[in-house]
Formats: sequence, C-alpha cells, structure tokens
Amino acid sequence: MTFSKDARANLDRFWSTIERSAEIGAGRPGGLSRLALSAADREMRDQFVIWCREAGLSIEVDELGSIFARRNGSFNELPSVLVGSHLDTQANGGRFDGIVGVMAGLEMVRRLNELGHVTRRPITIVNWTSEEGARFAPVAVASGAFVGQYDAEWVKGLTDENGIRFGDELARIGYQGQRPARGGPVDAYFELHIEQGPVLDAEKRQVGIVHDAYSSHRMQVRFDGETAHPGPTTMDRRRNALIAAARFLVAVDDIGWEFAATDGKASGSRLTAWPNMAGILSEVAHASADVRHPNPDTLRLMAEKMRRALYASAAMAGCSATVEHEASWGGPLFDDTLVAGIVERAKEMGYSWRLLASQAAHDAYYMAAHCPSAMIFTPCKDGISHHNTESCEPEQLRPGLDLLIQVVVDRADCLSGDMLT
Amino acid sequence: MTFSKDARANLDRFWSTIERSAEIGAGRPGGLSRLALSAADREMRDQFVIWCREAGLSIEVDELGSIFARRNGSFNELPSVLVGSHLDTQANGGRFDGIVGVMAGLEMVRRLNELGHVTRRPITIVNWTSEEGARFAPVAVASGAFVGQYDAEWVKGLTDENGIRFGDELARIGYQGQRPARGGPVDAYFELHIEQGPVLDAEKRQVGIVHDAYSSHRMQVRFDGETAHPGPTTMDRRRNALIAAARFLVAVDDIGWEFAATDGKASGSRLTAWPNMAGILSEVAHASADVRHPNPDTLRLMAEKMRRALYASAAMAGCSATVEHEASWGGPLFDDTLVAGIVERAKEMGYSWRLLASQAAHDAYYMAAHCPSAMIFTPCKDGISHHNTESCEPEQLRPGLDLLIQVVVDRADCLSGDMLT
Repeated sequence: MTFSKDARANLDRFWSTIERSAEIGAGRPGGLSRLALSAADREMRDQFVIWCREAGLSIEVDELGSIFARRNGSFNELPSVLVGSHLDTQANGGRFDGIVGVMAGLEMVRRLNELGHVTRRPITIVNWTSEEGARFAPVAVASGAFVGQYDAEWVKGLTDENGIRFGDELARIGYQGQRPARGGPVDAYFELHIEQGPVLDAEKRQVGIVHDAYSSHRMQVRFDGETAHPGPTTMDRRRNALIAAARFLVAVDDIGWEFAATDGKASGSRLTAWPNMAGILSEVAHASADVRHPNPDTLRLMAEKMRRALYASAAMAGCSATVEHEASWGGPLFDDTLVAGIVERAKEMGYSWRLLASQAAHDAYYMAAHCPSAMIFTPCKDGISHHNTESCEPEQLRPGLDLLIQVVVDRADCLSGDMLT
Repeated sequence: MTFSKDARANLDRFWSTIERSAEIGAGRPGGLSRLALSAADREMRDQFVIWCREAGLSIEVDELGSIFARRNGSFNELPSVLVGSHLDTQANGGRFDGIVGVMAGLEMVRRLNELGHVTRRPITIVNWTSEEGARFAPVAVASGAFVGQYDAEWVKGLTDENGIRFGDELARIGYQGQRPARGGPVDAYFELHIEQGPVLDAEKRQVGIVHDAYSSHRMQVRFDGETAHPGPTTMDRRRNALIAAARFLVAVDDIGWEFAATDGKASGSRLTAWPNMAGILSEVAHASADVRHPNPDTLRLMAEKMRRALYASAAMAGCSATVEHEASWGGPLFDDTLVAGIVERAKEMGYSWRLLASQAAHDAYYMAAHCPSAMIFTPCKDGISHHNTESCEPEQLRPGLDLLIQVVVDRADCLSGDMLT
C-alpha cells in the first residue's frame, strides 16, 4: 500500500503531548528543568512509555536507559528506521528542545495506526538518555555509546556535581534496561528539532534541512595548585587553581571574540574549585569550554589556541593543567541522499525551506557515524534556547512534522535504501 | 599578691591540648578540616568546655555561639581581661591557626590555679565562632557582632554553599546561647597566634609583637546575565555571568602582580555560578576577592582598581554587577600602651622579638575597636598556613605562650589601665 502524500499529522494531538511534557519538571515560567535521570525525567519517561504502549508499540530499554519503542512493519527482519531525540532538558531549559523530536515520532505512529498503514521496515522511536550533558557531562553519552564512541561502563561511572553516579541514578529511576547500549544495524536515523538558532525565524522559512554541522571541540580540564592563606602568601608563591581556571575561561572567551566576525563562538560554561572559599587559595579546579566554527579549518585554529591557552593559563597561575576529556564534533555529517530526498519532498509539499548548518550538538551527530542520518529543523523565536523563554507556535512546527512523517515513511517503505524509489 | 615573673607554662600540658584538638575534624595528613558549626566544631567545643569546667571556669555562650569561660578575680565588678582566638579551621586548615590562642588561655588559667594566684580583674577565655568565614562568609562575624559591626540576626541568616543557615546550624550543634552577641565592657583583649607569615621563621625570632596590620579590602560580588545555548548564540548576544566573574578574578590577580613589588597581594578565592553546566551559559555568578597592602594609601588604589575591574569585567561579558558585601580592615589598630608593655616584658624575659604587621585578619582587628587590644605572634614553618602542612614545634610556641601569660596577668592585676604599674 502506498502511503498518501496528503497524509498530515494531527497537530492538536501532537501539541497536547508537548504541553503535557511541559508540566513535568517545570522550571522557570514557561520552561523546564528536567535534568537527566531526575525524578522528573522518570515521570516523563513513564508518560512516554504509557503513550507508546497505548499506540501498540513494543518497548525496549537499553543499559543506559535509552527507550526504543518499535512499530513492526511487514519485513521485521530488516533494520528499523529510527526516529527520535531526547526528553531531558537543561537546568533552565525550554519545552521544545529535544521533546519535539520524540513527540513527532509518537504522532507519526499514531497517525499511521489511524491510517492503517503498515510500513515495510519497522519504525522505532528513540528517547536518548542524557543528551544535554547538563547533569552528567559530556553530552549525548547514550547515542555515543550506541555507536561505539563510549563504553557503557564508563558512562555509568560518570558523576554529577554531588558525586552521584549515572549508573546509580539510572537504577534508582528504574530505567536500567537489558538491551545492550551498543546498537545493532539501523536503516536510517531521522531527528526533528527546533533550530536553536535565529535563521529560520528571521527569514520566515518553514523548515531547515540540515546538511552540515558547525565544527566544534570541547575540553574538560583540571588544574592542580595548592591551598594557602591569601594574606601572607606573596604573589610569586601562589598556586591558586581557581585563578588558573578563571584565566583559561577568559582566554577562551577572547578566542570567541577573535573569531566572531566569521561566526566563531567560544564558551566557558563550567568552573568548579576546591575549597573555593573566602580566605583560602584553591588546590584544584575543573573547567569546561568549547569552540565552534562553520569552517573546519578555522575550528582547528581555535581549538589549538584553546589548548595553548590552557597551558598558558595554568603556567601564569603556577599550576599544572590536565585534559580530562575532549571531544570533537560537527562537519558534513549528514547523508547526501537523505538530504536530497528531504529537499525533494519539501518542494513537493510547497514549504519554504533552506539548507542549514546545525550549531548545537545533537544525538544525530553520533548516529551519522552509524547509519545514514538526517535532521529537519523548525523555527524558534529569535533562536533562543537553553532558556525558559524558548518559544515556538504550533503552526511553526507543522511543516517540519509533516515533512518528517513523509520522509520517514518513504524510507520505511523502501527496501533498496533509496527512499524515493 | 604579686605574680612571679618567673612563672612559666606547662608546655607539655599545653601541647597535649593542641594534639587532642588535632584529632577532632582531622583533614589531610597533619591538618584539620573543622568548618564552623560542623559536627567536628561541636565536638571540639564540647571538649573545650569540659576542660574549662575542670579548671573551675564559669561558661557563658552568646547567641552566635561564642564561648566565654571566666575565671573570677578579686574585683569581679570590673571588666574582664579577655584572651582567646578561634577553634574553627579552613577546609584544608592546619592544627595551630586559632587553636593556639584558645589553648594558651586555657593553659594560663590552669597555671594560675596551680599557683593559687587570684588576679584583681577576672580573666575570660573566648572562642569566637566562625573566625575563618570559610563556610559562612564573611570572616570573624562573631567578634564583628560583639563590637557592633554586624547585627546578630544578619549573621544568623548567612547561608553556606548548600543553603544551610548559620542560625539553624548553631541551634543544631547546641551552641545557641543566651548571652547577647553584642558585648559589654572589656578591659583589654589579647590574642596569641601563629604568624601565618615567614618573617619570624626566616629571622629565627622567638616572638612577634603586632603593632600594625596590612590594610585590606574584600568584596563579595554578584553578576547577573542570562542562560543561552553556547552553540548558536553569537558572542555579541551573550550575557554569560560565569565569564564576567572569571574576568573579575583575573583582573584582581593582575592587580596583585602590579603591586607585588611593594608586597601587595590580591586574591580571587571563590567563584560559583548557575547553572554552571556544560552546554549552557550561566545566568548568575558570585565571586569573592580581596586586596592587601602594608601601605593604606596604596591599598586604597588597589581597592579602587578592584572596584573598576568589577564593572569593567561585567560590561565586557554583557552582565551587570552588584556588590553584595564589602569590608575593610587593617591599619594601626593595636594599642600603643599594650604594645609597649609587651615589648618591655619580652626584653625582660630575654626573648628575641620584633614588631610585626599582621597580614591575615583576626578577631583582634574587631576587638581593637572595642577595647585596648594586642596580638603576639609565634613562628610557623615557612609562613605556611591554611594548608595541612602548617607546622611549628612546641619549643617555638613557648616564648609567645609565656609572654602572653605574663602580660595578661600584668593587665589583670592592674586597676589603673596601665598594665606595668
């Protein structure tokens, strides 16, 4: 049976899932504070699983808590088409980031059920655990483990700022599953997401088709110094790790300004120190920073400058520096065939569209190393995200949602790998 | 009865109290981590009160938890001579800072008891609550309240980094007393302390007689910005409070180097931010910093430069800055007559001595505004303090201890205010 090119989502039903989600772990007005593996994360997961079961999906949870909700096709020995995103948020997050992508998968399945359409391949909705990396850095550890970038045991050993282990919290909220974190074959991966950038909103375009990703490099670093009394300890005898870390974050910010004219960004986003108290110099400090640029060659310059700034900052404060973790992402990750197919469909459906480079990291970045992957962006007001004022209207989500449904079903109905045949 | 000029402390007994204290709240090897109002602080207080009761002292606790242990004289309507220091430590503190001064008072009383000497004025040992300000900034709030610098209710409302209130912790450990925090008349205040500087150790002098204090100014500040996603948010749209605070601490450190040649110091000692997580820019940050200089005029320059750096740092990061608390201390605080009397006694006793300016803040700074006050310093190895390797030998403490006993008894036996008549 051919799927109708006129099939459209039930926008009200889809929007009601976004609104229900916005009640769970509510943060600042309009926003969410639903950190990974928190009680609110559990409550949202439970709601999502209920909805999936109601839609007749079979649920599997992997050992890092990612939820896979499968709708069988007619050729169930074939790898699934995977569609999803994440339900966790930042501490001051919005109600759309990540959530739109998971709920889009749910609405797609509900609509397919109503239409009685059985795809050839199975379609699986995924909620990736801890995409934000807000509570447990780094970001996107579950999709990273799925593609073999991280070892599951290493992820379980990550700790939050209170020293609580990822693995312990996962068990506590009841989402430590049996399925291996390392994933098997996947036919293709699709992720719908708000842009988290101002382009679509400014240009009044309905959909962004992601063909590229800003090149990015993040470092999590540690500085070692020595406690001392700030009164009698002369400047030349100090080894204040807090000052080493502060110098590093300032140097990173300066790198951002240096490359700002070509849309480079550099961010110091985290600094902790010990004892970090009035009246004593600090023995140890940790910092997290990243650089991003649309041009991979320029990004390499920025990353190297960040590395040099790390050691220079430590030296100036009489401390030593260690890189505890670093990761690169971005570049032309996405599958040309999928991108071309999505463009074709967008034209057919009459949407205003454009190709876009993603500036934020997504689970799709990891998935792109595992199977053909693609992302569709929807507009969000002023490009604001990771803030409670993150905003978009239902009608702004409709084109991306309907486009996603068409291209996912295209792919799931195609056995050759060429979605449009 | 005239007190013998040959009376000397029982050094072994005194040292045993230092060693017992070093078992309570032990931290890194050799050091202490006995933060104010912690369980360890309570245990130490209980031990101190037991010792004081055994020595026949009457105990009063004020509403901020400071302990006053009084030995009556023959004219008990006269104000006491007060002698003491503090029993709390830094998170990575040593075993001598503060403790020496309290235990010296205890040893003095024990020796007076043995000798059967009744002073004319009462002598009161004091343990000031939370001198270090490590857990509850600012420093020396209890002696500050004693002299009217702080309101007791304001002090009780201070919170630690977990949001726990000073007043609640005080009640929890059972040291919320009835005596008003605001003190009444005091005849004179004496404090024995390790130097926390390298001068006596380097010059092999037995005692330092403190005639001056480095001028100092501390600011606790707040920066307000806005959360945002570090990916798409261009540099010119950012208001990252963490970067504002980092810029401020770096600017403070630079001020320290600028004035280092004339023994100026500038210290960034604390930085917190929220959300302070990877993947999001911070909305709010707090920082604590101070500048110190032997010359009050130069200190004023340093403090003004720190103030300008505060607003410049905030402006550069697109944030606003607020001074939440600031305090100045230091200068020629100490009583000339007391200092001259201590010098006279040190000469008579044959000690190698020198006048010294204190670089660290002490409860005596506040007390100097309330009554004639003086400090005696003993050597400590390499001037290291606020570190577990803080170190001194018993024999290095003996001259300061014996000198303290002589001058306190001199003062307590004198009714005119001139200790040597």
